[in-house]
Amino acid sequence: MTDFQQRKEQLLREHEQLLNRQNNRLPSENGIYFRYEHPILTARHIPLTWRYDFSEKSNPYLQERIMMNAVMNSGAILLDGRYLVVARVEGADRKSFFAVAESPNGVDNFHFWDEPITMPDGDNPPATNVYDMRLTKHEDGWIYGVFCVERHDDTQPFNTSAAVAAAGIARTRDLKTWERLPDLKSLCQQRNVVLHPEFVDGKYAFYTRPQDGFIETGKGGGIGWTLVRDITHAEVSNERIINARYYHTIMEVKNGEGPAPIKTKDGWLHLAHGVRNTADGLRYVLYLYMTSLEYPTEIIYEPAGYFLAPQGCEEYIGDVMNVAFSNGWIVDNSQFTIHNSQSAIHDSERDTRRVLIYYATADTRMHVAESTVDRLVDYCKNTKKDGLTTSASVETIKALINRNKGL
Amino acid sequence: MTDFQQRKEQLLREHEQLLNRQNNRLPSENGIYFRYEHPILTARHIPLTWRYDFSEKSNPYLQERIMMNAVMNSGAILLDGRYLVVARVEGADRKSFFAVAESPNGVDNFHFWDEPITMPDGDNPPATNVYDMRLTKHEDGWIYGVFCVERHDDTQPFNTSAAVAAAGIARTRDLKTWERLPDLKSLCQQRNVVLHPEFVDGKYAFYTRPQDGFIETGKGGGIGWTLVRDITHAEVSNERIINARYYHTIMEVKNGEGPAPIKTKDGWLHLAHGVRNTADGLRYVLYLYMTSLEYPTEIIYEPAGYFLAPQGCEEYIGDVMNVAFSNGWIVDNSQFTIHNSQSAIHDSERDTRRVLIYYATADTRMHVAESTVDRLVDYCKNTKKDGLTTSASVETIKALINRNKGL
Repeated sequence: MTDFQQRKEQLLREHEQLLNRQNNRLPSENGIYFRYEHPILTARHIPLTWRYDFSEKSNPYLQERIMMNAVMNSGAILLDGRYLVVARVEGADRKSFFAVAESPNGVDNFHFWDEPITMPDGDNPPATNVYDMRLTKHEDGWIYGVFCVERHDDTQPFNTSAAVAAAGIARTRDLKTWERLPDLKSLCQQRNVVLHPEFVDGKYAFYTRPQDGFIETGKGGGIGWTLVRDITHAEVSNERIINARYYHTIMEVKNGEGPAPIKTKDGWLHLAHGVRNTADGLRYVLYLYMTSLEYPTEIIYEPAGYFLAPQGCEEYIGDVMNVAFSNGWIVDNSQFTIHNSQSAIHDSERDTRRVLIYYATADTRMHVAESTVDRLVDYCKNTKKDGLTTSASVETIKALINRNKGL
Repeated sequence: MTDFQQRKEQLLREHEQLLNRQNNRLPSENGIYFRYEHPILTARHIPLTWRYDFSEKSNPYLQERIMMNAVMNSGAILLDGRYLVVARVEGADRKSFFAVAESPNGVDNFHFWDEPITMPDGDNPPATNVYDMRLTKHEDGWIYGVFCVERHDDTQPFNTSAAVAAAGIARTRDLKTWERLPDLKSLCQQRNVVLHPEFVDGKYAFYTRPQDGFIETGKGGGIGWTLVRDITHAEVSNERIINARYYHTIMEVKNGEGPAPIKTKDGWLHLAHGVRNTADGLRYVLYLYMTSLEYPTEIIYEPAGYFLAPQGCEEYIGDVMNVAFSNGWIVDNSQFTIHNSQSAIHDSERDTRRVLIYYATADTRMHVAESTVDRLVDYCKNTKKDGLTTSASVETIKALINRNKGL
């Protein structure tokens, strides 16, 4: 065997070991969800055939020909028993694109499909970059991918960072072939646009996040809502904010819808991100809220503060520090079991469907956290709303202390 | 032995252990270069006599009298068989200065010379700070050091952060005695100025980086080029940009030449840094490009994306997170050997001269990466140019996948 072949064998072996590595559930720190030992996807998980030219003749040093930077912000879906994520993969060239990775259990053994998704270029000019796809299995029968499309803002020709963000829309049956629809028309820039899974008043419903600039939301911001009659010519109209940002909260600077909400008997369960500023840049954390089944724009539970924030070096560190972001989760019917089985929660009244929350940290890697519908709803119902002042927070804590005194 | 003496002995012993620590080459992750196990220089490598008063009488607690903060952005040169770097050393007082450290092999056992460099103050007013020296062994026989000089911008008296950056020039034969020449005259601010090692059209040639402000490059930016007749009265004229920054690349916000380029049979090999913005501040990565031997301003290879970016906690974390920077590399004639010797690459046609790339991370510490001229040129020739859109990147990846299918 030549040295080239030896090195190739070694590369392949080590890659398989990484991909087949078992991922163990960690003890829960808060009883609400469980983290896992390892990230589920990193740049190192990207297939070697996407990166190396395996011809000894044209690549005698067996050098990487296309370096990859990161795997992050992934949409997720359970399709015919397969746990699938549509990852945002970013090359060393800073362009990101979509690629499907599949796992037999949702927590490890994620393998990318043979090729990245070929997303048709939509409106002209084609987007420079695409990212952060939200997958929605809509009751019209299609699976929609709504994602951010970014183009240079040519009204500022000398500013190489000036960009315009809009929402791209595509649909598919199998995540392989995608029909690209026109971008969502909007008077302002849009990011974090998500399609609601059901018709509302016979129309398609979008969660939006209007913003004045590419980074700054400006005077607007907040999670918005708009109804659209024709998804093939979608346009924002009568946009209203259903979940606003607020001074000195975790969403002081920005917030945005995460994946499409999960329907529960108690309401629509939403996962979103909130952003505050710090002396060292923005901090992104995840939070939950719930809206009414009857009036999906009405917030019924709004627990204070974050639900999940970066933790430990592994989650804090990366290309964009201090960022937890999620645009994908899966709810399935497999019952969640905890190592020390807790009979109390296996009540038949309870919705113990498993929820896999896919979150990225530091725009660098993908993780999974695990919970149940019931646990998440319990959290939403029983964590008090933000009192918006330090005194209110102290009163809330003292009330809990007092309750515990009697126990 | 008194406690003072015991502690002193211990300090000296531990310091020697640190300085003499062997640095092992790590397996290459991309086949292009090899990282090393340890940083080569940190603040802890700075001689104890620069920091401690070793008189028991005046320093009974044996306290550090001058705390040091970091060792970073170092010029490098191979001189009479000695591997030398001119480091940017930064004290706890935030001032930086130059100091030479010497190694017998280029990868470990770096010891600072007895004293920091005494750089003569040049133009009036003297610079408040100096940093990031590029060393050039010029064909005129001198070794030049070109570095950034920074002064307060007195046109903004109430802004304590307002600064003006210019290029200082000094020359030496031995890195000990330095002749300071007048700063490079320029209509705009300058950083990352580098002297080309050869005369071009009988003139000195400088790589420049014109900028409107101290941090922002403004409308200008890019790596520029200017010819200078008299190095003792150097002035920028007819500056032209040879490597521009561009929207949604790794050098969207800024870029700058690293060390002086290496001459290869295929062209001048350049190492540079590119800067993009993120929600958490700027991100600095390193990239390579090549220019023609005949027309040194003509770019002949321009591989997409970065060549080296911060990796792992050790490289990401520090005073200025998410920064990889290089202003020094050494090419020598010792042949590079890999543990599993790869006969194919010891072809006599190939330029297997060893290249030591000195890079700093997070403005905190110095590392070394190792490659060969041939590997770096191979990378430049065979990594595709940036297609500037996500679709172009996906097409490049798919083409590679298809090539690999046949193998």
